[in-house]
Amino acid sequence: MQSDQPQDGRSAKSRPGVERIILGIDPGTTVMGFGVIRVDGSEARLLEAGAIRFPVGDDHTLKLRAIFRSTTEIIERHLPDELAIEAQFFGKNVQSMLKLGRAQGVAISAALQRDLSVVEYAPKRVKQSITGNGNAAKEQVAAMLLSILRIKELPTSTDATDAVAVAVCHFFAQTGRASGSSSKGKGGNNWSAFLRNNPDRVV
Amino acid sequence: MQSDQPQDGRSAKSRPGVERIILGIDPGTTVMGFGVIRVDGSEARLLEAGAIRFPVGDDHTLKLRAIFRSTTEIIERHLPDELAIEAQFFGKNVQSMLKLGRAQGVAISAALQRDLSVVEYAPKRVKQSITGNGNAAKEQVAAMLLSILRIKELPTSTDATDAVAVAVCHFFAQTGRASGSSSKGKGGNNWSAFLRNNPDRVV
Repeated sequence: MQSDQPQDGRSAKSRPGVERIILGIDPGTTVMGFGVIRVDGSEARLLEAGAIRFPVGDDHTLKLRAIFRSTTEIIERHLPDELAIEAQFFGKNVQSMLKLGRAQGVAISAALQRDLSVVEYAPKRVKQSITGNGNAAKEQVAAMLLSILRIKELPTSTDATDAVAVAVCHFFAQTGRASGSSSKGKGGNNWSAFLRNNPDRVV
Repeated sequence: MQSDQPQDGRSAKSRPGVERIILGIDPGTTVMGFGVIRVDGSEARLLEAGAIRFPVGDDHTLKLRAIFRSTTEIIERHLPDELAIEAQFFGKNVQSMLKLGRAQGVAISAALQRDLSVVEYAPKRVKQSITGNGNAAKEQVAAMLLSILRIKELPTSTDATDAVAVAVCHFFAQTGRASGSSSKGKGGNNWSAFLRNNPDRVV
């Protein structure tokens, strides 16, 4: 069993039976996290994860241009089939929500221009999906991701981890596996459900 | 002197000395106004103006896709050099601001993908630029636009008029003409300043 996966994961491209590639992003106005996973049946592998910091300053258009270009570059590099976006829907400040909305809109457009399907998940939903707890700590989410993706480490950036998480959340939502709602009936969190359902995954 | 210009204005394409084409848009989540003007030295002519209504419903991604496609189509039809966008920066509701930000971001992206330069103007600034009064009524703005563009009518949609206005505002901002700030010193509004500075424009 392959228990360690390089973060750029290019070697995995030679494996047969590829179903699809999911790009997860966590767009912000100063930094955008991204994570690309390759889904093959019930397995998910990390292809790339990282965070892109945008130019600091008042020129908002310059930032939007950077978001558009960066997202387009990632899409061209991995040719994903779907974009899963972590979308914050609530905030206190209308100004910052407008800027966040623009950043989201630009990232979504980069996907629309390549005819990717686009799905959004609220942060709570992502945490619920990965850990079984919508209020889980970031460390819990990261630990679950290491196990699910069978890797030893993730980029230190929490934005990158959030982006990988939303990609995996989308993978789970499509397979109906390890979602918060499905684990509720079992009275356990996703971590225990995951161990129960995937004994071969324990490394 | 040509005092009447068809709204689709295609015949104007045969004129020499074209400097550039400006696309003005007023993006909203349910309707997007657009106006395309052709600027040749100190003259501006309307090429096309209209409003596009987006599908009603909860599927926000569908709306964003419609905004992206519509804006791209307009850009492909007229090959503008610049996008001037009317951008509301304030609102009471964070949810609606997020959605508005997304609509703006998507429209901006359609321009970024074609390497257009993008400039934003607040609604007040647009009114100030066109009429000399930041609080001008929509009817005043529309009346000024008819005169500036030498046309007899504009689309009845206020979204379309707003979009044409932001395109003309950008034209004025670049030529330093008829802006609110420049007219203040003369104690007049832009309408009178416009008549003073452009006697040949009176038809």
